Amino acid sequence: MSGPPPAVAAVRSAVRPGLRGSPQPVLVAVSGGADSLALAAAVAFEAPRAGVPAGAVTVDHGLQPGSAGRARRTADLVRDLGLDPVLVLPVTVRADGGPEGAARTARYAALAGAAAGHGARVALGHTLDDQAETVLLGLGRGSGPRSVAGMVAERPPFWRPLLGVRRSATREACAALGLPVWDDPWNTDPAHRRARLRAEVLPLLEDVLGGGVAPALARTAALLREDLDALDGLAAGHLARLTGDGALPVAGLVALPAALRRRVLRGWLRDAGVPDLQAAHLGAVDALLTGWRGQGPVALPGGAEALRASGRLVLRPAGCRGGRARPAADPRPVPDPEEQHP
Amino acid sequence: MSGPPPAVAAVRSAVRPGLRGSPQPVLVAVSGGADSLALAAAVAFEAPRAGVPAGAVTVDHGLQPGSAGRARRTADLVRDLGLDPVLVLPVTVRADGGPEGAARTARYAALAGAAAGHGARVALGHTLDDQAETVLLGLGRGSGPRSVAGMVAERPPFWRPLLGVRRSATREACAALGLPVWDDPWNTDPAHRRARLRAEVLPLLEDVLGGGVAPALARTAALLREDLDALDGLAAGHLARLTGDGALPVAGLVALPAALRRRVLRGWLRDAGVPDLQAAHLGAVDALLTGWRGQGPVALPGGAEALRASGRLVLRPAGCRGGRARPAADPRPVPDPEEQHP
Repeated sequence: MSGPPPAVAAVRSAVRPGLRGSPQPVLVAVSGGADSLALAAAVAFEAPRAGVPAGAVTVDHGLQPGSAGRARRTADLVRDLGLDPVLVLPVTVRADGGPEGAARTARYAALAGAAAGHGARVALGHTLDDQAETVLLGLGRGSGPRSVAGMVAERPPFWRPLLGVRRSATREACAALGLPVWDDPWNTDPAHRRARLRAEVLPLLEDVLGGGVAPALARTAALLREDLDALDGLAAGHLARLTGDGALPVAGLVALPAALRRRVLRGWLRDAGVPDLQAAHLGAVDALLTGWRGQGPVALPGGAEALRASGRLVLRPAGCRGGRARPAADPRPVPDPEEQHP
Repeated sequence: MSGPPPAVAAVRSAVRPGLRGSPQPVLVAVSGGADSLALAAAVAFEAPRAGVPAGAVTVDHGLQPGSAGRARRTADLVRDLGLDPVLVLPVTVRADGGPEGAARTARYAALAGAAAGHGARVALGHTLDDQAETVLLGLGRGSGPRSVAGMVAERPPFWRPLLGVRRSATREACAALGLPVWDDPWNTDPAHRRARLRAEVLPLLEDVLGGGVAPALARTAALLREDLDALDGLAAGHLARLTGDGALPVAGLVALPAALRRRVLRGWLRDAGVPDLQAAHLGAVDALLTGWRGQGPVALPGGAEALRASGRLVLRPAGCRGGRARPAADPRPVPDPEEQHP
């Protein structure tokens, strides 16, 4: 007996390890495109063998005429693959924050809700090529290593088993399985940055650098994530060790390498509820340690200020007493990229 | 009295902190292009004020007709700026390894030799834009975070004070100072990857991602370097702590996060003199820890093999006894990028 076509086998192999021993059911997020359809087919095949209940969820963004009907047809298609239940979730996309960002925010919220409602993991069809595009987008943002590390394979409730699979393989798998693929016009609309990265930038980079760019970007992202996980874990340990009464001892902080010190400070400020922390805020607080020349408190978003007093960093409501806090303005706000790829 | 033109002031500001208190003289590496000429002019202005002796060195690669004459004219130009001594070093570029790589290797060897001969630091004119190109080249190589972290501002004997300065500023500075700039035809020759990154890829990325890409790449590189320095420092500490008789205890290694464990292994193998270590070798040795199922020794370049025995990782000459070593082949060798940017 001959096995399945190579592309079908590749997608199945990619989902198998993550299904084995999964304590939760899985819901496959299906747009109707090749990536998510191939993923749905692979999960529909592998999940019963792993003894894991598997359904699907499709989000109707309501942004294109006929989107409700298309969502219904997609749902029928994956139901025929054997997934059950199959949920269709209509969402309202807010107008602010750019069309790509707003649709993504609404989609992830709906998917997270479905996951919570069913005690399930949500499988997402992002491929190696999506990862490469995400790395390039992160580079363009310049918000640091975290944004270049791309998307995470596993962050509950989300699971991305195809980050090592090429987009071409998902398309081949759908063709081999006779699954009708819906090509979202957004994916080729040059008004969207990701579409232009895909159609113009990555092919040019491939040409200039001699091929293999998408796998190289994905490999770099994976190694970076390993590094960042290690640093984040170490910093969390230092933060737990150093914070006593909510203040941080200067001596303990300056002994840390810069990469750990800044992570400890970020964790400290976040734990204290400081919202919208920008790179410039962190830099100004860090300067209380490494550029100390008796400067006054640093004003932070949310009405707090950080100051150095008696060999400790202290956080207090702004305007308590003493000198006027210096606002830590940033000419180009750099949001936390993690929040953009849950 | 009005100050110098803004671009001239910007380049001078960039070199000033690194000159202050410099215990060594400085030699500016000058190609005759805008970046290195602007750097030479700034060092010639600032070094006497910092009490630091400053000369220059220009390398004649002998690759273009008339290159010796051009090197002489460049030397005369920077001598007129007040730099002394001004060395002209002819080098022989080997044919292997690609024209860009071979010229770079020969150049760095000559510069390092000059540094050693004069007990000097060598100032290099790489700008923010060069850094952005280096990050993109590193991404294309996919050899991990280190290659994306770009060039180092300070690694003796090399010093790169202009990594925060735009290329356009060095050109403006030269124009303001009336310095005749030589444009290396290599820099615009589409046969060279870096030239195409500069002329095609970065402008397209700027267009697609909405501007600010080169500074974003440089900012990411700087943050990455901070992360990598921290991890390398921590790994060196663990290696020193764990190696007793040259072997490594398995228990101590598996307790480390992956990013530290792999660095400790790399340091251990390098210290033992294993040459040309590739990603696949490291992965195979790591599997002796994290994917242990009783496998045999791992063959390494240079005739050594690593094996797990009695709860320890041991290195020994290949073929000592026991099972045949499994070669750790890599379909795409990934050299250590650090060696490419000394």
